[in-house]
Amino acid sequence: MFKHTNRITMNFKDALQWRYATKQMSGEVVPQEKLDTITEAARMAPTSSGIQPFELLVISNKALKEQIQPIAFNQPTIVQSSHLLVFAAWDSYTEERINNHFKYNNEERGLPETATDDYRKMLLNMYGNQTPEQHFTHAAKQSYIALGYATIAAALEQVDATPMEGFNPAALDELLKLKEKGLRSVSLLALGYRNAEADWNVKLKKVRRPRSKFITEIK
Amino acid sequence: MFKHTNRITMNFKDALQWRYATKQMSGEVVPQEKLDTITEAARMAPTSSGIQPFELLVISNKALKEQIQPIAFNQPTIVQSSHLLVFAAWDSYTEERINNHFKYNNEERGLPETATDDYRKMLLNMYGNQTPEQHFTHAAKQSYIALGYATIAAALEQVDATPMEGFNPAALDELLKLKEKGLRSVSLLALGYRNAEADWNVKLKKVRRPRSKFITEIK
Repeated sequence: MFKHTNRITMNFKDALQWRYATKQMSGEVVPQEKLDTITEAARMAPTSSGIQPFELLVISNKALKEQIQPIAFNQPTIVQSSHLLVFAAWDSYTEERINNHFKYNNEERGLPETATDDYRKMLLNMYGNQTPEQHFTHAAKQSYIALGYATIAAALEQVDATPMEGFNPAALDELLKLKEKGLRSVSLLALGYRNAEADWNVKLKKVRRPRSKFITEIK
Repeated sequence: MFKHTNRITMNFKDALQWRYATKQMSGEVVPQEKLDTITEAARMAPTSSGIQPFELLVISNKALKEQIQPIAFNQPTIVQSSHLLVFAAWDSYTEERINNHFKYNNEERGLPETATDDYRKMLLNMYGNQTPEQHFTHAAKQSYIALGYATIAAALEQVDATPMEGFNPAALDELLKLKEKGLRSVSLLALGYRNAEADWNVKLKKVRRPRSKFITEIK
């Protein structure tokens, strides 16, 4: 029960090899300290203009996970996970959200509220010329950086993680009442521990396109 | 000149605090070993179905960086960087690209070419019902996970990094002849070393939205 509670951490390169999209989990609970490290990594991730245009839902409620599973192709890790993270992006860059961002940042930095007005107005103008759908796409992209950060943090803590795009976003938004918060679901991340006996995916060699077909150097 | 060549690495949590969007770099060169660690992290990043629908251009050529700068709001780090990475996503999920992915993966895993046919056909059908623009948006999102991985790897190696979306993608695609490769530019990542005296951004407190406004726990 408590075998994962001590803070064993991995080397970064080993963690990149160790992690994989876990398809079967054991139900074992991720300790709060490790969970906090993972969500904190997502919070610290860089985003466009530092605006962090998304939120994180952290679901450990069993009944809710059971409701989510059928709208996510019945993927087993949703209910087998310890915690299910939902990355939910802003449905639009409203003036209020942009203004609040700069107000808070300037307060935290001890700067006058007007210190970043030129940049703030430039952003308001830029987003003012875009549709809410363009806003959401841009915000969703930022959330993928944080999704990446969370998967690395999990691996370094030897917590397994399954990133998922395979679900019905409209149904999940309704279930989680995200529209009322001005949010739309983008991705899921199941956190837990692999059931190595049951998981076909852990047995497969990790494959990536060779460097020669992935990287072009221009010297 | 060689003060950064020894392999000093940081603790993950410290790295999250240490990194920032560097606005002025020194021109100092990032050693090949550190550069390889950063690009390798991008290559190892998870992507939807493991398809890695993007490529990485690694530009150290000074003349080319000088040509890129004016189409990227003249951001100084483009020419002050040691290497400028370009994340370029597939312009579409062609049948050939999908088939090549599964063929290569099955070869690497010693499986018959038909081992993953059900899943391959499901993907071909799914992407067959989408527009190239939808493909590109999806591929671009995957590249943000890898962008995140690269920024963490850089920080762990104490290499500074500036992620950038502020450039003219059409002009950059033309300059780098990306269309001919079926690619479209998504983001830039300047790698190098901070010029701490000149950089206003290094002096500012790192601010993130508080956890209470970023995370919702559902227990």
